[in-house]
Amino acid sequence: MTTSRVVAVRNWKPAEHTGGTDHIAVETPVALTYNRQPHVVMMVTPADLEDFALGFSLTEGLIGAPDDLLAVRVIPREGGIEVAMSITEPWFDRLATQRRNLTGRTGCGLCGAERIEQALRYPEPVGDRVRVTHAAVQQALATMREHQPLQGVTGATHGAAWCDLQGNIGLLREDVGRHNALDKLIGALARQGFDPQNGFVLVSSRASYEMVYKAAAVGMELIVAVSAPTTLAIEFAERAGVTLVGFGRPGRHNVYTFEQRITD
Amino acid sequence: MTTSRVVAVRNWKPAEHTGGTDHIAVETPVALTYNRQPHVVMMVTPADLEDFALGFSLTEGLIGAPDDLLAVRVIPREGGIEVAMSITEPWFDRLATQRRNLTGRTGCGLCGAERIEQALRYPEPVGDRVRVTHAAVQQALATMREHQPLQGVTGATHGAAWCDLQGNIGLLREDVGRHNALDKLIGALARQGFDPQNGFVLVSSRASYEMVYKAAAVGMELIVAVSAPTTLAIEFAERAGVTLVGFGRPGRHNVYTFEQRITD
Repeated sequence: MTTSRVVAVRNWKPAEHTGGTDHIAVETPVALTYNRQPHVVMMVTPADLEDFALGFSLTEGLIGAPDDLLAVRVIPREGGIEVAMSITEPWFDRLATQRRNLTGRTGCGLCGAERIEQALRYPEPVGDRVRVTHAAVQQALATMREHQPLQGVTGATHGAAWCDLQGNIGLLREDVGRHNALDKLIGALARQGFDPQNGFVLVSSRASYEMVYKAAAVGMELIVAVSAPTTLAIEFAERAGVTLVGFGRPGRHNVYTFEQRITD
Repeated sequence: MTTSRVVAVRNWKPAEHTGGTDHIAVETPVALTYNRQPHVVMMVTPADLEDFALGFSLTEGLIGAPDDLLAVRVIPREGGIEVAMSITEPWFDRLATQRRNLTGRTGCGLCGAERIEQALRYPEPVGDRVRVTHAAVQQALATMREHQPLQGVTGATHGAAWCDLQGNIGLLREDVGRHNALDKLIGALARQGFDPQNGFVLVSSRASYEMVYKAAAVGMELIVAVSAPTTLAIEFAERAGVTLVGFGRPGRHNVYTFEQRITD
């Protein structure tokens, strides 16, 4: 599927107009359905949708393990794409019960939550086995762009990368949405049967609490973000025992929580 | 209310560790209620919440005009903040009817939409009166940072600014969320009884289709984004007759739609 599109553009510089074209990142409405029941529509870059399906299902707690997702079909629909998933009966029953207990909801928002206590799901604490060097963190930061082809042509997409303990990037996923990029990465890793204690995650964006939640939900111990964290991201990292690094730039980075995982 | 917080941080540079503190942008769960009924919880920077309440209500079509919002109260709650709004009976009846017609929903997503056709609400076409120069666009871009105090200390927040036809920034609002920053700006402008044909909007972020939707919903004709647009943002701008400028940087910018509004 197309992840970028060439459009006409008028480039303005002082005393210079040039007409040309520009590569624009595609965002597509993607309807997620479970056992034929509509669940939610999200705006997604239409690549790696099977990874997205698995990662989203895992990090949202809609399934407990990769095997609970029995099948994924990607179906073009009018105006968008359907990602039709089949999940095991116990998990589908659980989802159906949750849905019956919810009242109708409208509006944009956080996971459709209506009340503050629904909104903040805290993650379970992660393990404490990962140890890396500051140089490994810098190694991953220095090579990230080479693994972001869509960002290279569009300048509009986020990346989420899985790095080994030496800071070598093993896998990277891209999306217009930073949470989607992370869900795609987690889905791709889960399909390979990865060990979250064999590396760390690097995201090209800010660190929001949702990024920390999603990473912690699958046991990742160390998150490196290129840009700033928010207060809630730090609070979630503290609660989950996750090491949170922000402002990861060539030659520097800031460690906000549990610095013992990063050594010289 | 606090919009940034000072936290401990470990700053790493080659052969140098310094402990220090860092200003981190605060994100707080904000529960929006209408006539005492819970509507949605969003993560918001806790400043200008009255502006946010009005802007969100307008751009989400929950009220038709500023006067339909009768009262706003900001109430500290356990774990977050309630923004309690009173709206007129006809609009509340409309909202209540919409909610009764919705089935239960779960999961993160786009406006809680379950089906693709629900997700894409196209805006009404805007007018065609705004004319500015390329120099005015550049003037606004050059001075934006001076109007972003929270971004200055945290490096983590987005800004949305209203600029007059000469490119002077009249008003700017900040938030950890780019859509929230725009809703705050629109609410602040609506409270002053602004004319959308007397200027243009400048956002420090990418241009997503939701940014175009929200701006067009209140009649804004020209949107300048510091970063990239997405394909759907361009499509929405084309449908709504909005001029969309992206990659607005010092000395250059790209015009994606309806370039007749920007002259030399």
